[in-house]
Amino acid sequence: MKSFDLQSVIESIRPVDPASLAAVQKRIDSQAKPQGSLGRLEEFARRFVAITGRDQIRIKTVFTFAGDHGVTAEGVSAFPREVTPQMVFNFLEGGASINALANQVGADVRVVDMGVDHDFSPAEGLILRKIGRGTANFAKGPAMSRADAIRSLEAGIEMAAFCKDNGIDLAGTGDMGIGNTTPSAAIAACLTGRTVAEVTHRGTGIDDAALANKVRVIEAGLALNAPDPNDPVDVLAKVGGFEIGGIAGLVLGCAAFGIPVVVDGFISTAGALLASELHPHVRDYVFAAHKSVEIGHGAMLEKIGQRPILDLDMRLGEGTGGALAMGLIEASLRALREVKTFDAAGVTPGSER
Amino acid sequence: MKSFDLQSVIESIRPVDPASLAAVQKRIDSQAKPQGSLGRLEEFARRFVAITGRDQIRIKTVFTFAGDHGVTAEGVSAFPREVTPQMVFNFLEGGASINALANQVGADVRVVDMGVDHDFSPAEGLILRKIGRGTANFAKGPAMSRADAIRSLEAGIEMAAFCKDNGIDLAGTGDMGIGNTTPSAAIAACLTGRTVAEVTHRGTGIDDAALANKVRVIEAGLALNAPDPNDPVDVLAKVGGFEIGGIAGLVLGCAAFGIPVVVDGFISTAGALLASELHPHVRDYVFAAHKSVEIGHGAMLEKIGQRPILDLDMRLGEGTGGALAMGLIEASLRALREVKTFDAAGVTPGSER
Repeated sequence: MKSFDLQSVIESIRPVDPASLAAVQKRIDSQAKPQGSLGRLEEFARRFVAITGRDQIRIKTVFTFAGDHGVTAEGVSAFPREVTPQMVFNFLEGGASINALANQVGADVRVVDMGVDHDFSPAEGLILRKIGRGTANFAKGPAMSRADAIRSLEAGIEMAAFCKDNGIDLAGTGDMGIGNTTPSAAIAACLTGRTVAEVTHRGTGIDDAALANKVRVIEAGLALNAPDPNDPVDVLAKVGGFEIGGIAGLVLGCAAFGIPVVVDGFISTAGALLASELHPHVRDYVFAAHKSVEIGHGAMLEKIGQRPILDLDMRLGEGTGGALAMGLIEASLRALREVKTFDAAGVTPGSER
Repeated sequence: MKSFDLQSVIESIRPVDPASLAAVQKRIDSQAKPQGSLGRLEEFARRFVAITGRDQIRIKTVFTFAGDHGVTAEGVSAFPREVTPQMVFNFLEGGASINALANQVGADVRVVDMGVDHDFSPAEGLILRKIGRGTANFAKGPAMSRADAIRSLEAGIEMAAFCKDNGIDLAGTGDMGIGNTTPSAAIAACLTGRTVAEVTHRGTGIDDAALANKVRVIEAGLALNAPDPNDPVDVLAKVGGFEIGGIAGLVLGCAAFGIPVVVDGFISTAGALLASELHPHVRDYVFAAHKSVEIGHGAMLEKIGQRPILDLDMRLGEGTGGALAMGLIEASLRALREVKTFDAAGVTPGSER
């Protein structure tokens, strides 16, 4: 297996070529429909083709990164920690929401164990990159060492390289980790400058008292660890998670290797925001799948500079919103390939063309 | 072919059974995910199953109703009238945007000639129900007679009956008709109480001067014909269109025969609003596909009482937004069928269940 140096990957990221974007739009504008009338589908097609040079997706893969969190000791989640490995088994057996939605759009699901508190045996669809059996409790000290933060990023980059080498033209991020809206909200507060209360929400479904406690835990963790907002790796190490590092690495790697990446909801966007803060052109490669119910999500998307594709009141994670968005990106390419030009269709162009 | 009496169809419409909706939600709540976390996908599955008694779609069909408009003589569109039949041929040859997007989600497309200014020969995928070669110019008098308005509604109802008889479990509306945002805006103004300027927009792409003219034409047409907002058939006759009547009839028929119907953008929503004003429970069967760029769309959706599924800055019509929304409704059913229960997946339920 190849390994990747974080810094050299970051330095290899380039903006998407404006001339390529314009060439795709010109092709779209020749098609028999009012100009611009497919709205954001045109944006999806334009970016996908400009990034990849292809107008058809060979393989779509959702990478669902899993990890546990020491901060669950503070009572921040409605679900017990044992659910993380239980759900990993459910993913591998095809019984979870991400499996159903990925099936619907014809995407593969790969589960990456970044740090679940369980020792998995090798299994089909499971990629073992465990950095530790859960992070440390960031209410008591840093979640992980800087070295482990870099290892988690590099594991994600390796997944992007896997895409490049295996014909995966569209990658999706996903997460599983009981407690992981807590580090995600901590990252959101640190990197967007919003208060903790402005970006912290109910996760899998906590009540008002538990939400107030979650806010206090994050505030205390940020005060104790003092992550440096100008150093995303420090933020990941101090208050992040192993699966969030994996997601950030996948997004970085996709930007470096020229792979469009669909970023799922709140936790995935925390990872994407870390990546985006590491290089300003990461955002060119990001497709924001959907707007989560989590209140801190919008501030992170705004900071990244991408508008969500869907807004369906979802708050499940796993990559579920990303799978649905993949279907829409694929639809945009279908339109690009199959809609005839005005000339070929024998349709008179409008007077304003 | 069966024919249908408008009044008896309207009288046969029933609300969707609340007990059936609750039973589907109970099934969803047993699945291994935080309760409610699939957001609107749960609503889609709940309504679809409660309406149909099925959790899988056999056939999905988009009905693209086509018609011409006398009001194009007033210079309200960026495209010439000949484009309506040209696009009908493009639909039949599979070269239009609706074909590409329907292909993507596995839906059929059927084109219904309600009133195109061209005599079509019989063709595969084309249903001939021509009421006239375009409406009359509503700037000079009523667009059609009341009898023709009823005929157009009954033709749409017949399409719903075709669905019921042929295993089409999900219907979609679509439109083609150069000039048809003009009658749609007239209907919107008349039925929502907004001013014409508040609901009139650029259609396929007119400039500011043409938009100002379009507003004046609609204002004058409404003043001249004085459609009665309490009589939707009168509104359709005075300022509507043959294809809009067909759409309204399909939506009515779907409500009467228990078929979920995906309503596309601005023109389709004008049809659905007519149907919804004819019976208050029509809305229970309506899935609003997307939010159009047309500024009058939101007011009509609000009046119907359905929230759009997608918001992708689209303004193409044909049924394109509806096709995309069909894919999301189908995804919701996939999740309903395939996601395991907590028990079957061996996942510990959350503390708040």
